[in-house]
Amino acid sequence: MKVIAHIHNDFPTKFGIPRQAGLVEELRAEIVFTQEYRNPEALRGIEGFSHLWLIWEFSAARRDTWSPTVRPPRLGGNTRMGVFATRSPFRPNPLGLSCVRLTAVRETEQGTVLEVAGADLMDGTPIYDIKPYIPYSDCHPEASGGFTDTADDFLLHVSDPASLLEQIPEPRRSALTGVLSHDPRPSYQNDPERVYGMAFGGYDVRFRVSGHVLTIVELVKSS
Amino acid sequence: MKVIAHIHNDFPTKFGIPRQAGLVEELRAEIVFTQEYRNPEALRGIEGFSHLWLIWEFSAARRDTWSPTVRPPRLGGNTRMGVFATRSPFRPNPLGLSCVRLTAVRETEQGTVLEVAGADLMDGTPIYDIKPYIPYSDCHPEASGGFTDTADDFLLHVSDPASLLEQIPEPRRSALTGVLSHDPRPSYQNDPERVYGMAFGGYDVRFRVSGHVLTIVELVKSS
Repeated sequence: MKVIAHIHNDFPTKFGIPRQAGLVEELRAEIVFTQEYRNPEALRGIEGFSHLWLIWEFSAARRDTWSPTVRPPRLGGNTRMGVFATRSPFRPNPLGLSCVRLTAVRETEQGTVLEVAGADLMDGTPIYDIKPYIPYSDCHPEASGGFTDTADDFLLHVSDPASLLEQIPEPRRSALTGVLSHDPRPSYQNDPERVYGMAFGGYDVRFRVSGHVLTIVELVKSS
Repeated sequence: MKVIAHIHNDFPTKFGIPRQAGLVEELRAEIVFTQEYRNPEALRGIEGFSHLWLIWEFSAARRDTWSPTVRPPRLGGNTRMGVFATRSPFRPNPLGLSCVRLTAVRETEQGTVLEVAGADLMDGTPIYDIKPYIPYSDCHPEASGGFTDTADDFLLHVSDPASLLEQIPEPRRSALTGVLSHDPRPSYQNDPERVYGMAFGGYDVRFRVSGHVLTIVELVKSS
């Protein structure tokens, strides 16, 4: 498999990345092509599509073995599902599939760059393929989504009593708030005293979660 | 990349395969897992999903080189588009992406088999991954589909004056009629005298196309 591009965004680690694409629309990312595939001709007509598919490598989840079942975070992390009934990164081939919104096609010193919204990839993730989203074939409003239909999506309220987030300029601030509202804690965790840390966009964000409220307790610029 | 499964259906060759998944819903196929991945546990919960993604190898379109542009059949085959703005098989990594409808999960002598509808894969195609279709992340009714929105989709009328298709039992007959209505001719071709042949489900189908009418002229059981 050839790496055609890499994504660049505000997630230096896996921690906090939304569990599906499109959940946090405010998230912005850039797709930069590798030298061999840095050819504007290969993107001719792409601006006509509002959404793209990315097929990418779960590069932070490589494993030599596979397990037939996994425990989706959406089910609280204690219910086992078949790996092919989930989008878990731990699968026989570490292929990720994400639908992102195409917001701009820009000429830069790194060649033609695609700006996208809603990506659930870590910074630097290798991309194997980019395909247009074709509504007549890909859009199925009638589809039933198995356990993802019924599992509650507990959005947290983000509380920032000391107005720490104000030091982050928009639109990154909204993106971070969106990420936090989707509860970046690992599954199983439910200790209101525990302080979690998350790296995002050059900041270390520290927070507690009690019930449905996430409270920001510290925000430090990464060195 | 590990081959987790193969698809089995009525297309022994590329000729006639609809150019996207879901265009001919009557098409039926079976997904049979390879020995290593033949484990019913890996499918636990999959029956709750109505649609699945298949990521597969364009095994009949392997090439050592890539071209930045391709000529989509939907544009008549004479307009060049960037490869990443199309779903063409001729791309840097030969990965296909298809959304199919899951119609049944069956226990067989070959292990648990998935029956699917609408697949645009050739018989025997290797599959790398199966993922559930998650409506909240994958379904975008507002999406604009670039050149696929505006290109006319010329459905042909299938004429069978000698009632040759009657020897094919349903539902395979409807599937074949659907395939033929999507115009299996290669792009550029427009010779009403020419007889085209196509293999489907154990038959050799021969037909002519004049204007918007496809006429079946011969139907022979394959030896």
